[in-house]
Amino acid sequence: MSSEVRFSLANKQQLIAQFLKVRQHSEIYCQPLEIEDYGLQAIADTSPVKWHLAHTSWFFETFILKTTEINFIPFNKHYEYLFNSYYNGVGEQFLRAKRSLLSRPTVKEVYEYRANINTRIVKLIESFDQVPDEVASLLILGINHEQQHQELFFTDLLYNWYQNPLLPSYQAQTADKINQGRSPQIAPIKWIAYPEQMTTLGVNNTDKFFVFDNETPQHKVYLQAFEIADRLVTNADFLQFIEANGYVSSDYWLSDGWTTVKSNGWKCPLYWFKRDGDWYQYGLNGVQPLNLGAPVSHVSAYEADAFARWSNARLPTEAEWEHVASKFEIKGNFVESGRLQTEKNEQPLEVKQLYGDVWEWTSTAYGPHPGFNPAKGAVGEYNGKFMCNQQVLKGGSCVTSSEHIRSSYRNFFYPDARWQFSGIRLARDL
Amino acid sequence: MSSEVRFSLANKQQLIAQFLKVRQHSEIYCQPLEIEDYGLQAIADTSPVKWHLAHTSWFFETFILKTTEINFIPFNKHYEYLFNSYYNGVGEQFLRAKRSLLSRPTVKEVYEYRANINTRIVKLIESFDQVPDEVASLLILGINHEQQHQELFFTDLLYNWYQNPLLPSYQAQTADKINQGRSPQIAPIKWIAYPEQMTTLGVNNTDKFFVFDNETPQHKVYLQAFEIADRLVTNADFLQFIEANGYVSSDYWLSDGWTTVKSNGWKCPLYWFKRDGDWYQYGLNGVQPLNLGAPVSHVSAYEADAFARWSNARLPTEAEWEHVASKFEIKGNFVESGRLQTEKNEQPLEVKQLYGDVWEWTSTAYGPHPGFNPAKGAVGEYNGKFMCNQQVLKGGSCVTSSEHIRSSYRNFFYPDARWQFSGIRLARDL
Amino acid sequence: MSSEVRFSLANKQQLIAQFLKVRQHSEIYCQPLEIEDYGLQAIADTSPVKWHLAHTSWFFETFILKTTEINFIPFNKHYEYLFNSYYNGVGEQFLRAKRSLLSRPTVKEVYEYRANINTRIVKLIESFDQVPDEVASLLILGINHEQQHQELFFTDLLYNWYQNPLLPSYQAQTADKINQGRSPQIAPIKWIAYPEQMTTLGVNNTDKFFVFDNETPQHKVYLQAFEIADRLVTNADFLQFIEANGYVSSDYWLSDGWTTVKSNGWKCPLYWFKRDGDWYQYGLNGVQPLNLGAPVSHVSAYEADAFARWSNARLPTEAEWEHVASKFEIKGNFVESGRLQTEKNEQPLEVKQLYGDVWEWTSTAYGPHPGFNPAKGAVGEYNGKFMCNQQVLKGGSCVTSSEHIRSSYRNFFYPDARWQFSGIRLARDL
Amino acid sequence: MSSEVRFSLANKQQLIAQFLKVRQHSEIYCQPLEIEDYGLQAIADTSPVKWHLAHTSWFFETFILKTTEINFIPFNKHYEYLFNSYYNGVGEQFLRAKRSLLSRPTVKEVYEYRANINTRIVKLIESFDQVPDEVASLLILGINHEQQHQELFFTDLLYNWYQNPLLPSYQAQTADKINQGRSPQIAPIKWIAYPEQMTTLGVNNTDKFFVFDNETPQHKVYLQAFEIADRLVTNADFLQFIEANGYVSSDYWLSDGWTTVKSNGWKCPLYWFKRDGDWYQYGLNGVQPLNLGAPVSHVSAYEADAFARWSNARLPTEAEWEHVASKFEIKGNFVESGRLQTEKNEQPLEVKQLYGDVWEWTSTAYGPHPGFNPAKGAVGEYNGKFMCNQQVLKGGSCVTSSEHIRSSYRNFFYPDARWQFSGIRLARDL
Repeated sequence: MSSEVRFSLANKQQLIAQFLKVRQHSEIYCQPLEIEDYGLQAIADTSPVKWHLAHTSWFFETFILKTTEINFIPFNKHYEYLFNSYYNGVGEQFLRAKRSLLSRPTVKEVYEYRANINTRIVKLIESFDQVPDEVASLLILGINHEQQHQELFFTDLLYNWYQNPLLPSYQAQTADKINQGRSPQIAPIKWIAYPEQMTTLGVNNTDKFFVFDNETPQHKVYLQAFEIADRLVTNADFLQFIEANGYVSSDYWLSDGWTTVKSNGWKCPLYWFKRDGDWYQYGLNGVQPLNLGAPVSHVSAYEADAFARWSNARLPTEAEWEHVASKFEIKGNFVESGRLQTEKNEQPLEVKQLYGDVWEWTSTAYGPHPGFNPAKGAVGEYNGKFMCNQQVLKGGSCVTSSEHIRSSYRNFFYPDARWQFSGIRLARDL
Repeated sequence: MSSEVRFSLANKQQLIAQFLKVRQHSEIYCQPLEIEDYGLQAIADTSPVKWHLAHTSWFFETFILKTTEINFIPFNKHYEYLFNSYYNGVGEQFLRAKRSLLSRPTVKEVYEYRANINTRIVKLIESFDQVPDEVASLLILGINHEQQHQELFFTDLLYNWYQNPLLPSYQAQTADKINQGRSPQIAPIKWIAYPEQMTTLGVNNTDKFFVFDNETPQHKVYLQAFEIADRLVTNADFLQFIEANGYVSSDYWLSDGWTTVKSNGWKCPLYWFKRDGDWYQYGLNGVQPLNLGAPVSHVSAYEADAFARWSNARLPTEAEWEHVASKFEIKGNFVESGRLQTEKNEQPLEVKQLYGDVWEWTSTAYGPHPGFNPAKGAVGEYNGKFMCNQQVLKGGSCVTSSEHIRSSYRNFFYPDARWQFSGIRLARDL
Repeated sequence: MSSEVRFSLANKQQLIAQFLKVRQHSEIYCQPLEIEDYGLQAIADTSPVKWHLAHTSWFFETFILKTTEINFIPFNKHYEYLFNSYYNGVGEQFLRAKRSLLSRPTVKEVYEYRANINTRIVKLIESFDQVPDEVASLLILGINHEQQHQELFFTDLLYNWYQNPLLPSYQAQTADKINQGRSPQIAPIKWIAYPEQMTTLGVNNTDKFFVFDNETPQHKVYLQAFEIADRLVTNADFLQFIEANGYVSSDYWLSDGWTTVKSNGWKCPLYWFKRDGDWYQYGLNGVQPLNLGAPVSHVSAYEADAFARWSNARLPTEAEWEHVASKFEIKGNFVESGRLQTEKNEQPLEVKQLYGDVWEWTSTAYGPHPGFNPAKGAVGEYNGKFMCNQQVLKGGSCVTSSEHIRSSYRNFFYPDARWQFSGIRLARDL
Repeated sequence: MSSEVRFSLANKQQLIAQFLKVRQHSEIYCQPLEIEDYGLQAIADTSPVKWHLAHTSWFFETFILKTTEINFIPFNKHYEYLFNSYYNGVGEQFLRAKRSLLSRPTVKEVYEYRANINTRIVKLIESFDQVPDEVASLLILGINHEQQHQELFFTDLLYNWYQNPLLPSYQAQTADKINQGRSPQIAPIKWIAYPEQMTTLGVNNTDKFFVFDNETPQHKVYLQAFEIADRLVTNADFLQFIEANGYVSSDYWLSDGWTTVKSNGWKCPLYWFKRDGDWYQYGLNGVQPLNLGAPVSHVSAYEADAFARWSNARLPTEAEWEHVASKFEIKGNFVESGRLQTEKNEQPLEVKQLYGDVWEWTSTAYGPHPGFNPAKGAVGEYNGKFMCNQQVLKGGSCVTSSEHIRSSYRNFFYPDARWQFSGIRLARDL
């Protein structure tokens, strides 16, 4: 459902079912964890699992129960402060970088919090003859919000575990995965050309589909002629860049990118390492030989840009990407596959891997679509206030829910971010 | 001349005259300084005057003399390292933040360096029957480069002096300026509407006019309908924002902007201060009562954006601004006026102050125009490698040369920069 | 036993009993904890509980089993790296500040590690007819080392919990404690005079008593005449300093101390806070009204020095303190009392509270006693390499084991440290 | 005169002569400088020359003229703030790290300030029939203070110039100096033994000799038996330490020292560098081949301690050093020699080089002598408030005035400081 729910007409039971399904998934994803794993936070960006579980509950409590429930009493009066992420309109927040210091509430207490919120939300929805538009809208926003945190659950956990020399594995490696780890490089990129034209981008916020406010409104854009790669850049491709001294020479790099490379000592994508002359990659399936045919992942926008420049190409603009992708069905390697890593291209499509595998860096700075208006109140802080210094990524990754993605979807990260499943598709001027 | 020179046909004497004129201006601007003033550098961004004088000479020496002069011998073999700003293609650079530590070469020696380069450039140009295109092109680039550093001379000097409680003044305050300091607020903003339309932006690099590579190529853009303010935001306007707790409430701020405000303790534009209940502004004319009718200056993109949001408006996009400005003549309060500060609007134009007074922050992230290609070699690092994390500003300021500006000109700074003469023009969706 | 064991003659069963008793205490102290509490580390100084439990086991494994056990196999080959604190002679160490990122090994696995080491140590000791001196010596060192970490267990846990607005409590507050929280200020300080004289300080490392190497050798010192306070400085005393603007005026402060006060915004001892006009103190018994009659705790050497200066007194030198304390029996408020906080003075002694309650800052920089020689090998890094920039504290605290302390005992911390139970005794020249 | 003046009986003309002589020397030392050199400040510690010239004048103005002159008017009302170093009792201070940003007052204005203060001080002294003790005392303190800043003039200038790849030279290298630069290693250290004994250290503040307050009072100390090296550690000695991997292995280092070495990447003393396999040293005479027979200089206390440990020795305590040195005449390589660098030992003494060449690191933390009382008022901040975290150095250096030193003189720096002429003498337990 999710992105297809017509929420103004929403069948209550359908809403409740979707709510409970997504809420349950957050907990299912935690099953392989030890209690000790719930508290890790290596950097401010990578929040503890426990915090994700609590914050997503806080979202429903704050934006729905607090304003709608009769005789609302908070589950715990401290949680408003502890589990508010960044909503200044709601109030002060516990310091982001210190979330790992909250040993209390315990994991058990957070699960109790979740159960309590679930019960109350279901009761609230059931209490309506007709779910008010605003409640339905916020509920669906909360569901989508929780799906985003499910993705962060995986990316944050991976980064946090990576600090531990024991390199924990989220799931056992199957023979299939190990074999895939040895897949060879695949066929060269084919370039698919698009003539110059007017196109429309973004979507309007109707009652038919859920979209985030930052995807709105639909608007006209003029595209210059361009061509786009028919597949993602692979680990094998990226290895060539490394072996051609891509990280050694400043020639291909943006100035800020080169400064970042030098000050962090980057020599390869995050999670890659070389042992006895062979390259390996750490991931949710543990340590594996570098999978040559699979899309490269965990690169920053700087690395993506440098690779593109070295390839005599460039990154696509958001408009180019969205124009291309809007013509394709949403199929790909998503979290539902259970693989939790990129895989080599096997789609029989003209342009492959647009959805899933990795978020694709675009050259477009994250800003408002023409005519953009954020929602009123604190919930309006969801997307709009981040429209500076970040770059747009498109298409979802191997830890995104397939229900959660669409061509207009706008993900955004600072250009130096590497802990997401972020990769590269090339484009060129015609 | 500068932006109007047809350099392929350039008359040698014309080229030499323009070269010498601009070179001389750099030295004229230094006349009020004490030797001690030449070495100041408060932050990495604000280079010492002496360094500007040497670096602009190094530019001609490196990009023209070194490749063209027969039996080239560097003026001083250490200067290539000391006065290279950021050209990795030329070699390593002395650390930017430490430029103030170069007491040697002395000011006198740097003036000797300048004289030497001037003589050799003139001799070189005179040695040609017909100045080769590439040499002419680099010479004009060097002239424009020096003009940019003349602007930085003023903005860096002001920032560096500002650290000194004695608050030195670059020039004596005339009665005129003091009176102007008491000019009242001016008429409210009028909004000028533009319908949706296709337009062309950027310029092509022809042999008729000099432009920087980042202004090219000319390309088509689709504009949504919008309206733009007929004048700049004034100090009086901005004071209202302050008095309405603009710096106290997070409501109007981008997330990164709010973080910046908090961590720097910003409470007003740079160089403003309050004494005994009255507002003053420090500038190149010393300390003056806040000039209510003059455009606000020395605000970051964050402050510009927050002010716009508080005004139920937004910043213009670069495309909107350029579309509007391309229809107006280049007239305004530039360095040639000798005022060296913003002044109240007195232009009898439908849209006033587009040129001069302050660089106008746009909402557009600095990136390549579609089809952009940087120049080959080290000189290609001039603009292209900075196309990330910065924001476009348009129109020139009261310390820009009027010869140096045009509607396609793209200035760029990080959104937290305040030491330029940067201000605000509002726009709105229609 | 501990400090009284004659280890060369040590009865094996006595050694084993003492070993197991101390090892068991580390685990008993953890009983009130949730699993989530074991991983907290707010700053590099305050290691996670789990790390303390593992590191103390690593100490026995590395310094005894590894060198003595036949066919030694490490419990886990990664632990040598993960749980080495600072012994460069053993090898590289996992970064101290990142210990909280080790969710694995789990708490359960660390307890298994502890049990394994216990079994092997007991088996090893039992395998000897006569325990070799070196083994006995290292075993007793390891036992004393574990007692030190038991103290750190309490002080680190308290600091780590303090970051959490929920302010967890280690144990329930008894009525007794709450009443004590209201104990009034006690009688004024009496000054006890000591004439100038030769004295001996330190101890020799004989086979009769265990001492740390930094307490050796015994040596002669000449003392000037002085007088010493008969009791510790109380919370009531320190409150007067605060109310006399002690933290506001630079007059009483060492230069480095004043810089520290300003940059940290210190306004009172660590864990004090004011609510609705009343002072409270957070501690292992939770939040309590400030106990006026109890010794002030959690002050830095800077605060101790400033308080002393404000009192027209000074801190005692280590020699003065040790000379005085060596004449008194070791009795006081130690961890065995179960109070885990300072208490008001009720000792019928001429000089009270020399032992227990708080570590007493001296004015003596931590350095080697004349003739000091650290042990050979990596274990020689235990104390000697820290003899710079730190200050000596004497007498033990309310979370020290009474078995662990003596007048020659030298504790040492940087002068800005506040997370230990550190307090103040005054002295004066005569 | 200086340290020998009986100031209560001081002949006015003698006082004035000494004042003018020392004041003049500050200016003589500046003669080789360019105006640009006066403003350099590479780090907070190394103040600009201009600031030293002004601050020493401020000292006389603030502590003598302001309290004694009739109808005192400050030379410039801003100077109290700008040129106060660290006297909180006088008022707030301009931020130390930003002194290089004061291009105004100019060098010329500062010399005018100096002249003005000189005139007024002379006039004031001449106005007395009998110079009051307090004025005489402060005048002599000011004279000694200025001598200290003359030493800092040299050490700060050298450090500031060192940042410039042009490596300016303060004076031309004479053939003599260049030859000396090739002097070979000298005879091995001989050890001079001292039996255990009572001794007296420090001095009492009588009217016979000027001493700083931190040298008082005289007090009894018990010395253990020890032996001390008959000469300083040479560059050749220290080179052996480097070649024995002294900077590579943690074995010899204090923990804080090792951290400092690693984080700063130290591989040799400050100002040493290797070029084409040969060692050179930069100094006030420019770049020279490493002078093997001369004392090593510009090492931190950490390096001194590590070298001593590697040599199976230790640093002397302050008491040991002072006990030894008090028996020797004050002769050595001081600023008056004009060499401005260390030289090889040619003294026909049992213990050589105790005075001059380099300040000798002791193992003694800088603290108060027993019974120490700082002066009343702001001038009491001169020494006392620094008695923490620093280490005592003894004996003066090649840029100290010979009039300024004595065996009781206590210099103090943080153990990581290297920009002073600081070196090493070894000691051992007997």
